[in-house]
Amino acid sequence: MWSLLNSKTFKTLSTNPRLWRRTVTTKSLIYRKFGQPINELQIIEEDIPNPIDKQVLIKILRAPVNPMDVSIIQGIYPFRPKILPAIGGGEFVGEILKVGELVMNLNEGDLIIPLRMHLGSWTTYKLAEEEEVYKIPKYSDLKEAATIGANTCAAYRLLKGFVNLKPGDSIIQNGANGFVGQTVHKLCKLWGIKSLGVIRDRPDAGVLKLAMERLGATVVLTDKEIDTTDVYETNCLLKPKLALNCTGGEMAESIARHLDKCGIMVTYAGVSGKPFKISALPSLILNEQRFTGFWITKWIEENLGSPHQVRMMNELIRLLETNQLETPPVEIIPFDDFKEAFAKRDGSCKRFMLDMTVDEDVKWIGERLRPLVPLGHCSNFGGKKAVKKSDKK
Amino acid sequence: MWSLLNSKTFKTLSTNPRLWRRTVTTKSLIYRKFGQPINELQIIEEDIPNPIDKQVLIKILRAPVNPMDVSIIQGIYPFRPKILPAIGGGEFVGEILKVGELVMNLNEGDLIIPLRMHLGSWTTYKLAEEEEVYKIPKYSDLKEAATIGANTCAAYRLLKGFVNLKPGDSIIQNGANGFVGQTVHKLCKLWGIKSLGVIRDRPDAGVLKLAMERLGATVVLTDKEIDTTDVYETNCLLKPKLALNCTGGEMAESIARHLDKCGIMVTYAGVSGKPFKISALPSLILNEQRFTGFWITKWIEENLGSPHQVRMMNELIRLLETNQLETPPVEIIPFDDFKEAFAKRDGSCKRFMLDMTVDEDVKWIGERLRPLVPLGHCSNFGGKKAVKKSDKK
Repeated sequence: MWSLLNSKTFKTLSTNPRLWRRTVTTKSLIYRKFGQPINELQIIEEDIPNPIDKQVLIKILRAPVNPMDVSIIQGIYPFRPKILPAIGGGEFVGEILKVGELVMNLNEGDLIIPLRMHLGSWTTYKLAEEEEVYKIPKYSDLKEAATIGANTCAAYRLLKGFVNLKPGDSIIQNGANGFVGQTVHKLCKLWGIKSLGVIRDRPDAGVLKLAMERLGATVVLTDKEIDTTDVYETNCLLKPKLALNCTGGEMAESIARHLDKCGIMVTYAGVSGKPFKISALPSLILNEQRFTGFWITKWIEENLGSPHQVRMMNELIRLLETNQLETPPVEIIPFDDFKEAFAKRDGSCKRFMLDMTVDEDVKWIGERLRPLVPLGHCSNFGGKKAVKKSDKK
Repeated sequence: MWSLLNSKTFKTLSTNPRLWRRTVTTKSLIYRKFGQPINELQIIEEDIPNPIDKQVLIKILRAPVNPMDVSIIQGIYPFRPKILPAIGGGEFVGEILKVGELVMNLNEGDLIIPLRMHLGSWTTYKLAEEEEVYKIPKYSDLKEAATIGANTCAAYRLLKGFVNLKPGDSIIQNGANGFVGQTVHKLCKLWGIKSLGVIRDRPDAGVLKLAMERLGATVVLTDKEIDTTDVYETNCLLKPKLALNCTGGEMAESIARHLDKCGIMVTYAGVSGKPFKISALPSLILNEQRFTGFWITKWIEENLGSPHQVRMMNELIRLLETNQLETPPVEIIPFDDFKEAFAKRDGSCKRFMLDMTVDEDVKWIGERLRPLVPLGHCSNFGGKKAVKKSDKK
């Protein structure tokens, strides 16, 4: 496996015979201080030593650019790296190139995703501990795999962690077109749960509604429509037992008004930056509604390797294997074009994923093991002019 | 026991021999439509038949005038009587005069309080089902006894039902000088829990603070002081695990800001009528705080006769027996002077309790069994000019 590495990446770390060992050079997107990613991010090259003990050396294949990653660089996210400079990004899918002598359950050639958040994923090679990564099937779609660890897990936990939802039950969510929101609709559809999505009113609301409904949403309404809807009569929906709030502000209050008695609203983000109001009557006292929060970063830290997490990952991987999960549209950008991605990202809802393989002169396992996928350069899903290599479904 | 009744209250219900039985005439404060108590309440007299089956006939001795009772008459409380006219009031302490032939565990002469809420307590005699009342010790203080069933239970449930509080833990509450609030401070003191009370800023705040601290509050602050206090440093308080909200509005937000990580705020009333704001960050997501409601009426309906309720009542009665509970100051008003009570109540925090015995020419058990209590008329706790009969501690 080692031989797959481009020989130019091997270096001598030292002339001291005791330290004499081969290294691999990784190219990382780092930031030295908090600020706008487009200003702060820069590429550096570093040598990585061979993995020792329980370490594994990973070739990163795909790494998404999540809003959370951007907020961390901006310094406005609750999690901050312990030291700067730090490597950006959190999620990735990678291939194991080499394992330390104490690694028990992983081998060269395994396809893995991180179990821990915020390890730094915008880098071409990486050392991690065996316990920090999770082996996935080799034929997994790289795009799905790269987002399963945080966004898909968040959607899964939001639906499983608070209310015992049975087929036929309903949920309501704002930010229905967000990455987590889209996955929530998909999981609901898979599990027979009816989902009511709320999006901000906008010129292309009709198109967005159709896209969300195709993903699995039972109904999608704009924030202007939600308070006067007859959706329960016309769609035979039960009042939602669970409301998922990622916006705060009035859109949070809108979905809370739809909650069933004894329902719970879980807030997992507050992208509007605004608080929301709740009242004693009828919400808290008469209707016994509860309001709580969820933070996927903390959940993963606290449940690393737990039966909960293993069961969830196994179930998600099974959905991945059987093509029942579909990543929301995401544009693949070659790693070296990262500036373009961040420039485009500003002020748009577009999601990007960095392709960390394009400047290597070898084909990585994600591609090699999917012989039906035409390799090489092809145009992107979005009809973009720029010609880039794309993952396909 | 029957013979204790004033002979003028005995009547013949019917000349039909099958219905020939003695009745007692009760004098009740009823309302025929919703509105201000002072306008709507009127006294009527009705005959009550002998108790049958599992019924008990009760001589009501004391019945408080709670804000909840007033809200019900105003028609603004979540609970509404099923039919009008209805008898006002909910809490009382009474003596059993006669029992139906199927009554198992109660006897004539027993002192009882209601287990069920809103039975109608502003009446001199009453029929109730055996399961709706709870026997208390005969030497109980009537004033304590009359408020234990709703207000004291509410305080108890708020402290026991949501967080596992251990001695040394802290709670925070607004409306600290309310009836429930005062009892919360007392129970906290008894159980070794530190309590931080918040009151509205007012000219007599200093006096009120001292009174609350004498009751058991660790610290009492005004809403102006709460946000800049160094109370945790100076009083070695831990951050509160539990916040009790009965106001809503900004005072709710103030106490929420003091909640510890993973703390819970329970809203049991919203006397300001205003909602309160909560934010995704830091409250819900980073600090994992939860917001929920509690309604004593519903709790009692759902837990009537449950081990929970029996355990609670036993514990409260034990505190009552050992004089560890003290009712917040309350003015005793003769039943016939009810208009005076409601006129005084408007715009004041004064609490009243109706004395239903004063126009009877017998002494009831609450007095008779406490030989150390001087009977007859004496001035009230508050140095009121009007000379009224008062319960004493």
